[in-house]
Amino acid sequence: MLNTVKVRVPGTTANCGPGFDSVGIACTIYNSLELSVSEASGLIIEVSGEGAGAIPHSEKNIVWQAAKAVFAKVGFVYGGIRIRMVNAIPLARGLGSSAAAIVGGLVAANAISGNQLTRQQLFELATDIEGHPDNVAPALFGGITLSTVATGSEGAARAHHLRFLPPAPLSMIVAVPDFTLSTRASRQVLPQTVSLQDAVFNISRTALLIGALCKGEFQHLQYALEDKLHQPYRQKLVPGMPEVFQAALANGALGAAISGAGPCLIAFAVSKEKAIGDAMVAAFGRHQIKAGYHVLTIDPDGAKIIN
Amino acid sequence: MLNTVKVRVPGTTANCGPGFDSVGIACTIYNSLELSVSEASGLIIEVSGEGAGAIPHSEKNIVWQAAKAVFAKVGFVYGGIRIRMVNAIPLARGLGSSAAAIVGGLVAANAISGNQLTRQQLFELATDIEGHPDNVAPALFGGITLSTVATGSEGAARAHHLRFLPPAPLSMIVAVPDFTLSTRASRQVLPQTVSLQDAVFNISRTALLIGALCKGEFQHLQYALEDKLHQPYRQKLVPGMPEVFQAALANGALGAAISGAGPCLIAFAVSKEKAIGDAMVAAFGRHQIKAGYHVLTIDPDGAKIIN
Repeated sequence: MLNTVKVRVPGTTANCGPGFDSVGIACTIYNSLELSVSEASGLIIEVSGEGAGAIPHSEKNIVWQAAKAVFAKVGFVYGGIRIRMVNAIPLARGLGSSAAAIVGGLVAANAISGNQLTRQQLFELATDIEGHPDNVAPALFGGITLSTVATGSEGAARAHHLRFLPPAPLSMIVAVPDFTLSTRASRQVLPQTVSLQDAVFNISRTALLIGALCKGEFQHLQYALEDKLHQPYRQKLVPGMPEVFQAALANGALGAAISGAGPCLIAFAVSKEKAIGDAMVAAFGRHQIKAGYHVLTIDPDGAKIIN
Repeated sequence: MLNTVKVRVPGTTANCGPGFDSVGIACTIYNSLELSVSEASGLIIEVSGEGAGAIPHSEKNIVWQAAKAVFAKVGFVYGGIRIRMVNAIPLARGLGSSAAAIVGGLVAANAISGNQLTRQQLFELATDIEGHPDNVAPALFGGITLSTVATGSEGAARAHHLRFLPPAPLSMIVAVPDFTLSTRASRQVLPQTVSLQDAVFNISRTALLIGALCKGEFQHLQYALEDKLHQPYRQKLVPGMPEVFQAALANGALGAAISGAGPCLIAFAVSKEKAIGDAMVAAFGRHQIKAGYHVLTIDPDGAKIIN
């Protein structure tokens, strides 16, 4: 007997300028993932698309690690495992490829073992594995998510989120340069302490960002995407960053930011998406960096069984 | 000829936990203000209600300072001035009494001189006079406001705001202790630098707060009102603060915070307002502090001519 489920998981953009480690958006770019269990033994992993040469086919594979965590939690007994990944989300670029892998593994394993865990339980597991909730929340729930890790009265850390969709369509133009950046490297350039003034700068922009997205008042996005806590430090890791932002704004974008830990740069717009994408790629080109771009919108569904 | 306008201005609560210097809410507690210009000369100021013994009747009066700024900007020639203030907003308690005075003076003076300035111009003037936009924005525009001071392309600082109302009613129970606290004293206890971790803590709570208020998902408020950037430092200035918060939560509040720079403490709720207020006052009492409370809701109008 071969039991199979297929899951589609969106890529995600986190931070969105000021909303460092808090704000995430599910995007219409997807990995799909087929998980099969059989009575045989052994682990077979097949990868096509993005990361095909780089993603491990061993026990270390993160989809498998996530799936195994669900099987352990619910006491599901398995024999042989086959995982087939078809990836569109580029690896280590700031579009949530690792969150997608984790969430995909969790959701597929939960489905195949009889849906014994709630989405909140999967969210907590995903946050534990990923280390932070801001990409796994939108990958799981879709839409725009605001995540915290709250310390409950019992002292245990608990991932918490609010999800919403803006009342009007919003495009995201993501310029993908042809180099990778690990989240770890991108975190190492950040300071341990910041001025209260810079913290307040980001707080006020985060408030404006969420208000603008909730109410569909996108004219606030240019101010609302300003950041002083991570982008200024990461600028040296993404050559041409200010010029790419400038090119996006000059061609009709409402605002722009680093996507997650980078190096992807993301512009928000309600029109002129092609002109913006072309201009962002050309600006990267002036810094001798090859890039492509995707025009994405907000994925409302999050991880979804597509059997 | 005696030309008179009468203005009603709401009190405001700023910060709202994590949203330091950014988030403000107009409350249903009002000062009213009558400004008259005559062909005579001299300045007459009459104050009744809150602050009657403390508010200056001289040129230093802040309502008059604000009114004079409008008259100077639009070139309005005046003779004698009479200002009558009837105040319900307690002074120096964290309910925006100075913002109300400034905004009242500006709006009254603008009306009496022919409404030559836009609300945005009044907002910029008010922010200049007050030094920060987070109380003057809700006093002027009503509702919940998210304010920034943005640096435009021309380099000039420019106050910017987004205003909204939650889709469901929300009560604010404000416990007013019988001592005052100047904003200056309350700022002096704050650190100049903070850890990136604490900054991110507040960013994530601010995002959750604005999402919860915009969407009317008030169940998030308990986590969303958490703060690490100002309340822990101000706690020593407001004896009993943690106990008052605890009393509010234990009696049905959704969350609680310092109102502005304090010493008022504010709880948010959708029911049981009297029990919450009584419990907050009792908790202050256990620390030998006399207090009263107001049950308020969100004022949607801001400063309003009520001739």
